Amino acid sequence: MARLYGGIEGGGTKFMCAVGSGPEDIRAEGRFPTTTPEETMQQVVAFFKQAEQVHGRLDSIGFASFGPLDPRPGSVTFGHILSTPKPGWSNADVLGMVAADFDIPVAFDTDVNGAALGEWRWGAARGLDTFIYLTIGTGIGGGVMANGELVHGLLHPEMGHVLLPRNPEVDPYEGFCLFHKNCFEGLAAGPAIENRWGQRAETLPPDHPAWELEAHYIALALSGYICVLSPQRIILGGGVSSQQQLLPMVHQKVLEILNGYIQSPLILNHIDEYIVPVALEGKAGILGAFVMAEQAL
Amino acid sequence: MARLYGGIEGGGTKFMCAVGSGPEDIRAEGRFPTTTPEETMQQVVAFFKQAEQVHGRLDSIGFASFGPLDPRPGSVTFGHILSTPKPGWSNADVLGMVAADFDIPVAFDTDVNGAALGEWRWGAARGLDTFIYLTIGTGIGGGVMANGELVHGLLHPEMGHVLLPRNPEVDPYEGFCLFHKNCFEGLAAGPAIENRWGQRAETLPPDHPAWELEAHYIALALSGYICVLSPQRIILGGGVSSQQQLLPMVHQKVLEILNGYIQSPLILNHIDEYIVPVALEGKAGILGAFVMAEQAL
Repeated sequence: MARLYGGIEGGGTKFMCAVGSGPEDIRAEGRFPTTTPEETMQQVVAFFKQAEQVHGRLDSIGFASFGPLDPRPGSVTFGHILSTPKPGWSNADVLGMVAADFDIPVAFDTDVNGAALGEWRWGAARGLDTFIYLTIGTGIGGGVMANGELVHGLLHPEMGHVLLPRNPEVDPYEGFCLFHKNCFEGLAAGPAIENRWGQRAETLPPDHPAWELEAHYIALALSGYICVLSPQRIILGGGVSSQQQLLPMVHQKVLEILNGYIQSPLILNHIDEYIVPVALEGKAGILGAFVMAEQAL
Repeated sequence: MARLYGGIEGGGTKFMCAVGSGPEDIRAEGRFPTTTPEETMQQVVAFFKQAEQVHGRLDSIGFASFGPLDPRPGSVTFGHILSTPKPGWSNADVLGMVAADFDIPVAFDTDVNGAALGEWRWGAARGLDTFIYLTIGTGIGGGVMANGELVHGLLHPEMGHVLLPRNPEVDPYEGFCLFHKNCFEGLAAGPAIENRWGQRAETLPPDHPAWELEAHYIALALSGYICVLSPQRIILGGGVSSQQQLLPMVHQKVLEILNGYIQSPLILNHIDEYIVPVALEGKAGILGAFVMAEQAL
């Protein structure tokens, strides 16, 4: 009999929940604004309790959350959000608030690791064992799979916080990251585009110089990731990445930066198959949460 | 009965060979200048043939080589050096030249992956599953283990070729890398230090400003690695890293760059246990080759 999973994709502005087992089997969906941890997690629990009455008992739950968070089972703060500027969420035991109401395994990981798993099982990373899923939107974050397993290491990657060179003559905007101004997120996430050009990214026309500069920063970051991890593919998600004009510019600039050094035909001749958009669009995270749930069994 | 391994550490200037099974059991050692692939590999083969007459038959061989190279079993160029400025070595089938003379498994990987394995089994990475071994010498390269396995991905990491920001007012030297001038290797490997300051690195006194700048570049690169991979530890080897005055400066600068963002007590409070020197010194590569040989069985 097919298993039934609960999936949670916890974001900074909304929480998405689903019950099902895969992209062709989503039986219920819920969406709640991210308010306080207590209120939001209560809504999540209530959604699953109600879904269980209709669809039967869940076998397990996968919870992919915004961070920074502690994804290490056995750690005293496992399942907690760590220190975050988001009011009320620092040190919140979000996993505990869900798990306490269910007598089933609840897996917990970063939102980007969830999305990476979704793309791996059903999307643009099928058949790969070492790849990066990167989201570029309000923030920038990445999930890394190496040798078929998600990478946590010390805590979890913070791919948006790599420092990038900025030429003040070309780009006088200093970046908005409170920790490191000229990091990738500080220079290239949605708020940076808005601050730099004085209007929201999605209102900028495709031929606006904003996109050339954005592609430049994305290409700098991606070239670094390629050198550090040697991924078999890089998958770009998030609102900024969905700008159609960006990807071809990113391809060209990555080739210029690497300058032939990485001797891979995939990079040298098929860069458009190497750096690709998400296949699951808005569903990668919630579907990945199903995979997390499955792996928790 | 204990197994007997052959280890090869192939470098750009010399090849080291050993027969044994670990740091307490090295039964024979050889060292040959890196001349032509044919001549050098012939010396390697002759060394092992002779050692077998004295110590008995080898069970397997591990070959950790300079690169770029193809470490992917099944690839048509598996075991080959790829395109390299080193005369005569481009496309040389170095693995084939050894394996043809022995009817035993011969494992093949990068020199830095070999050293990473050595440090993992017997050195500074014992007990870890996700870490970086980085060598800073004539060149800069790194081996990555994630979730207990070495990372190859598309080909292998090229950690020395991440681009770093350079402030021309502080450092007018543009870097020596032919592919990307302001990459880590181009700005911070031994030749960069010599070109910038007009004398060889090992002749510069510990209080020379060269080391402060060197620590700056190392810290920039390491901070990036930390964000991308979230390693549990970073191990520094190579001639430049062996300068005692460097490591404390690197520690301080990494903390400054990360600026408290990575919420790990190990980084925040014990950076000297997080970024550490090699434990096996010059032996990491050859001992790692034993581990490669063992894993090939």
